[in-house]
Amino acid sequence: MTGVAINTDVGEGFGPWRFTDDEALLDHVTAANIACGFHAGDPDILRRTCAAAVRRGVAIGAQVSYRDLAGFGRRFIDVPTGTLVNDLLYQIGALRIFAEIAGGRVDYVKAHGALYNTAATHREHAAALVEAVATADPALPLLCQPGTEVWRQAEDAGLRPLAEAFADRGYDARGLLVPRDQPGALVTDREEAARRVVRMVVEGRVTAVTGEDIPITPAALCVHSDTAGALELASAVASALREAGVSLTPIR
Amino acid sequence: MTGVAINTDVGEGFGPWRFTDDEALLDHVTAANIACGFHAGDPDILRRTCAAAVRRGVAIGAQVSYRDLAGFGRRFIDVPTGTLVNDLLYQIGALRIFAEIAGGRVDYVKAHGALYNTAATHREHAAALVEAVATADPALPLLCQPGTEVWRQAEDAGLRPLAEAFADRGYDARGLLVPRDQPGALVTDREEAARRVVRMVVEGRVTAVTGEDIPITPAALCVHSDTAGALELASAVASALREAGVSLTPIR
Amino acid sequence: MTGVAINTDVGEGFGPWRFTDDEALLDHVTAANIACGFHAGDPDILRRTCAAAVRRGVAIGAQVSYRDLAGFGRRFIDVPTGTLVNDLLYQIGALRIFAEIAGGRVDYVKAHGALYNTAATHREHAAALVEAVATADPALPLLCQPGTEVWRQAEDAGLRPLAEAFADRGYDARGLLVPRDQPGALVTDREEAARRVVRMVVEGRVTAVTGEDIPITPAALCVHSDTAGALELASAVASALREAGVSLTPIR
Amino acid sequence: MTGVAINTDVGEGFGPWRFTDDEALLDHVTAANIACGFHAGDPDILRRTCAAAVRRGVAIGAQVSYRDLAGFGRRFIDVPTGTLVNDLLYQIGALRIFAEIAGGRVDYVKAHGALYNTAATHREHAAALVEAVATADPALPLLCQPGTEVWRQAEDAGLRPLAEAFADRGYDARGLLVPRDQPGALVTDREEAARRVVRMVVEGRVTAVTGEDIPITPAALCVHSDTAGALELASAVASALREAGVSLTPIR
Repeated sequence: MTGVAINTDVGEGFGPWRFTDDEALLDHVTAANIACGFHAGDPDILRRTCAAAVRRGVAIGAQVSYRDLAGFGRRFIDVPTGTLVNDLLYQIGALRIFAEIAGGRVDYVKAHGALYNTAATHREHAAALVEAVATADPALPLLCQPGTEVWRQAEDAGLRPLAEAFADRGYDARGLLVPRDQPGALVTDREEAARRVVRMVVEGRVTAVTGEDIPITPAALCVHSDTAGALELASAVASALREAGVSLTPIR
Repeated sequence: MTGVAINTDVGEGFGPWRFTDDEALLDHVTAANIACGFHAGDPDILRRTCAAAVRRGVAIGAQVSYRDLAGFGRRFIDVPTGTLVNDLLYQIGALRIFAEIAGGRVDYVKAHGALYNTAATHREHAAALVEAVATADPALPLLCQPGTEVWRQAEDAGLRPLAEAFADRGYDARGLLVPRDQPGALVTDREEAARRVVRMVVEGRVTAVTGEDIPITPAALCVHSDTAGALELASAVASALREAGVSLTPIR
Repeated sequence: MTGVAINTDVGEGFGPWRFTDDEALLDHVTAANIACGFHAGDPDILRRTCAAAVRRGVAIGAQVSYRDLAGFGRRFIDVPTGTLVNDLLYQIGALRIFAEIAGGRVDYVKAHGALYNTAATHREHAAALVEAVATADPALPLLCQPGTEVWRQAEDAGLRPLAEAFADRGYDARGLLVPRDQPGALVTDREEAARRVVRMVVEGRVTAVTGEDIPITPAALCVHSDTAGALELASAVASALREAGVSLTPIR
Repeated sequence: MTGVAINTDVGEGFGPWRFTDDEALLDHVTAANIACGFHAGDPDILRRTCAAAVRRGVAIGAQVSYRDLAGFGRRFIDVPTGTLVNDLLYQIGALRIFAEIAGGRVDYVKAHGALYNTAATHREHAAALVEAVATADPALPLLCQPGTEVWRQAEDAGLRPLAEAFADRGYDARGLLVPRDQPGALVTDREEAARRVVRMVVEGRVTAVTGEDIPITPAALCVHSDTAGALELASAVASALREAGVSLTPIR
């Protein structure tokens, strides 16, 4: 039977602030990208979120970021590569202790926001991400997209890059995401999104914005937690996959 | 005709996070306690909130705090008095430029959270608050409660302490707030809260939790923005006061 | 008589940390670029440094930066233009209150570190710097280099860009700084640096690394405070200029 | 043969700032109290300091603190106990990954600054420190002073409190430190300090400010790194102990 993970961002509050209904979201996913304190996430939140994930058998992902609380990690920062490596390790280490306290562990790493986008093309910052994972634990899967700079470097370094696909985003003919400011960037219809992910997982294909079918073999499907209807989308995707006989698995 | 201000906390977001519907709240108050960046409030929020206040003729208050973003200013910090003075001045200065850009000015100062509570009894931190206001502009009203340490020091220093009362809080026989962990601390019924504030302003009296009437002469009524139903409470209080012929005025 | 300002970075500590001997440096310059809290500078330091500058008749410059304490403002951050404008205004407002308390005022604005370098070529961030100055006070001089993007935009906006030259840096044939990683970037000999600045001010010329003389008409000479021998360089430059009959003036 | 550890605070820089010559200090001690990022210490510094400690066989201590970069952890913060536990765990986790990368491990925990002093008497914050250690690893020694609240709680919880004594501080008749603002608080003479620690370790006694001998059995001797002559004091203490036949051991 085919299997796939569904991941979403959780633990993205700080101090008195909250973004999402994490407990509810965690009921619909198998992998939690947990903010580690640099773009969001204070120690109380890290602890509570790790515990909530472990209680549900949801995998714990270190969602590492540039050091940028005010910008929520959404802004590229031209930080030296060596410093970035250490910034990422610090975040992984901090999350690790809370994962272990909860009876789990850090199961994978995924870059957040601007770092995710930057590592797709920026050689030095892709290298920093790869080096951080290799240094923390080379067996840690790194969630990223095939065809990107960080994917290639992770493969070259002997790491385990894991292919991520997006339920609510359009793809171009090369298999890359349509930029958000272009037509077809977003799949706003929940049912269509659910049909697309089923087809990705079962048939290994998705229709690009230009009309043709392209191959895609996701190991993990990302459902954005910060869009309106995130919960409903996650739920629809999970249901559709289960109905299609796809096993929803954590990332390990 | 009698007049009174209604004040509430706004601008209490940071980065991607928001607490309250500030625009809606500002429609129901005459004075805005604006976070200045130390417990909440980034420059974008300061600018937008000052503009929103000035558009409505709402007074701008510098809601100054301990430096404590992670704790939202709700935790006492044993900071040296001189450093606290400068921390408060920094916040007033930062808000002032945005108030002026909006075509307004900083109309008053009010301490936030732990500093508000601490200055009621803590000689050094009350002195820091008083010295900060005196240094920034001795003509600036300082919102606080009669009978507190900071009120006495503000009077002694020749400042303008302005009496604040709370729509949704119970009072003891001395005119002080009933601590939150004791019976009668909260007035949860909106209509009762509205009746109480009208009586405070029109008759200068409020019924203490112990049953007797005590004198109270508020210049400003605080409506908490972070409680459920804040908007409805603010609206009910404002309507009741207007119906009673009370003029709702900003703080200047 | 010809006049020129000598400016240097001061107030670049934070909490328990210090960079430079600010009091000593201020004895040798006429303009102080004061950190405003985003890359360095806490409120205690801002207050003390403004007072130390005013005592000596040294002009107060707001040295504004990206929000980047951990990186000391030395890293480009791809912050949205509108947010950058507000970040800069916040810093100017915070410094302004301490300048006024000291009996002075913010006399000019200068970008720090990565923002200084970025604004030389980056259209949006140059625009943010220009808009921040125009919004704070269009009469505020903006220290920058002729031939840069920010200089052009400042001129176009009707601001007062003030030409800055560097005592310890080499110039190329276009009048731009030789990048730090190239030969001739640094003028390490103190006496040579002093001779060069005298010639810049008196003759309006400097010898480029490529050998030819180029025109240069600095209104302010920058002496880096974070290089070894900063104090001695500042002293040598000041002495040489005075001996050449050049008046050392603050920036106003 | 008797043994004792000599510990000092290192890694107390942040961003561009440094406090002490860590490499030199580490040559004279056997245990390094390493700042974990909340009062000082960025990821680059944590990594470098752990590596420097492991290279010398110096034990790695997690010097945990209140979240207070601006105040360098020297100010009491009235943080809720549960939040404090998680703040401390976060710091231990972050340091742990760098200790492991260096080929070492976190060998012990020691509170920094205001938390150290507070935990000596404050029941809730002592409990937070004890709970953090018990949760991270109950086998981790906790450096603190006999006779304090945190010592008692650590014993009651079955942890391993390790007795710390101070080379440069005076003791009262109960074996507690003379407060810094009282006569006899500091032992400023290096040779006297060295003689005192030898006697503490060899004879188990020290002379109190009131003249009588009191028993003291330190497992670790603290040499402050932020006082003038720290290096010389550390060196003198280490030499005197070695000459007295005392083995200088790390904490494990």
